[in-house]
Amino acid sequence: MVTRLLTPDELEAALRRVGAERYHNLHPFHRMLHGGALNRGQVQAWALNRYYYQSRIPLKDAAFLSRAEDPALRREWRRRLEDHDGHAEGEGGIARWLALTDGLGLPRAEVEAGRGILPATRFAVDAYVRYVRDKSLLEAVASSLTELFSPTIISERVSGMLRHYDFISEDTLRYFGHRLEQAPRDSDFALDFVKREARTPEQQEQVLEALRFKCDVLWAQLDALHHAYVSPGLIPPGGFRPG
Amino acid sequence: MVTRLLTPDELEAALRRVGAERYHNLHPFHRMLHGGALNRGQVQAWALNRYYYQSRIPLKDAAFLSRAEDPALRREWRRRLEDHDGHAEGEGGIARWLALTDGLGLPRAEVEAGRGILPATRFAVDAYVRYVRDKSLLEAVASSLTELFSPTIISERVSGMLRHYDFISEDTLRYFGHRLEQAPRDSDFALDFVKREARTPEQQEQVLEALRFKCDVLWAQLDALHHAYVSPGLIPPGGFRPG
Repeated sequence: MVTRLLTPDELEAALRRVGAERYHNLHPFHRMLHGGALNRGQVQAWALNRYYYQSRIPLKDAAFLSRAEDPALRREWRRRLEDHDGHAEGEGGIARWLALTDGLGLPRAEVEAGRGILPATRFAVDAYVRYVRDKSLLEAVASSLTELFSPTIISERVSGMLRHYDFISEDTLRYFGHRLEQAPRDSDFALDFVKREARTPEQQEQVLEALRFKCDVLWAQLDALHHAYVSPGLIPPGGFRPG
Repeated sequence: MVTRLLTPDELEAALRRVGAERYHNLHPFHRMLHGGALNRGQVQAWALNRYYYQSRIPLKDAAFLSRAEDPALRREWRRRLEDHDGHAEGEGGIARWLALTDGLGLPRAEVEAGRGILPATRFAVDAYVRYVRDKSLLEAVASSLTELFSPTIISERVSGMLRHYDFISEDTLRYFGHRLEQAPRDSDFALDFVKREARTPEQQEQVLEALRFKCDVLWAQLDALHHAYVSPGLIPPGGFRPG
């Protein structure tokens, strides 16, 4: 609990501690993914489920925009929509994620229809969209701060996956290259915003809690994958079954 | 009531009839505005109240985006956000509307804070934002179709206002010049969408009802202005009082 007003730098340090303790790079499924310990079916399951997360991000960002009354804030946040949807068919983060699922041999129509996605993935992702729709703008911005920690995980992921999996190519991983540029730009903005706008200990606690919540959203998705596809490997009814 | 499935062209004709009967170019306040029958204070009241409508349009469009699961549809609709918010400070439809209120001598901070805006304006505009947030995507698209009728009203408005009011300049009306290009592009898309997607008599009725609803939203705003500033001229508590 925040019991006195932190300086902006103390708040940033506290946020970074949340990441150091709770970001999903610490999850065993992630270590297996990077470390080459998964088979193709398990990587397919990861990419398929993660597609649902990707596909909901623009809806989450638009929900934010629909509540942001300041045009300057909307202009800044609109770039996130542009990053994900692109400017034409085949562009943007979602299309690049589909290049990954294509490369892994998953039928695109099935991926886009969300066939076989784990219910726990939907629950976690939908909870995130609802959070951004319902909570304060400050909490909504703070919940995006997991991007502070994503450049490290992305670098590990790309090099690890290319090294270990012959069914993964640099081309299918091009999503991550773009995120390496976009995420720091976005997280710089969000970090400045919360450091400036959280003006009471209660608001600072909300900011920290929002980041913990978002870490939970990411972590829960890997828990579900681990449970279904690693140990005990209990795929729920309707869940994707590797070839 | 639509009792059998209309052809797309019949649906379009029915939509155009709604506009011919209910669009706010028929409202006496509008005729006075164009015809030079208003004084500066009344034109100020119009511009001030209409600002609230302008300022909510991007929130309405973002609410739509937050529910549109198709990236192509989002890309198309995103242009509306860009039109209103621009790409930098001072650009876009909202900034251009502020040029009008500036030109009319209204203090910008008061306008942006919504000081003096009629409660009925807020109720009508907020009802529109909620409508787009809560109704089907088809109805949300259809509710934008008043733009089919806006080029005519804009042309009348610009020429009429320039002719009749010495406190209005071409520069302060530049909002409308842009809308003359944007509105037809947007309404072409929306019209094609509803003609294609309304596939049952019930859906076609919903589309017509959505357009009637939106005409009501626009009409109610002029009713409120007329009541407060023309006849009987009963400005409600807290309402803007011309200098």
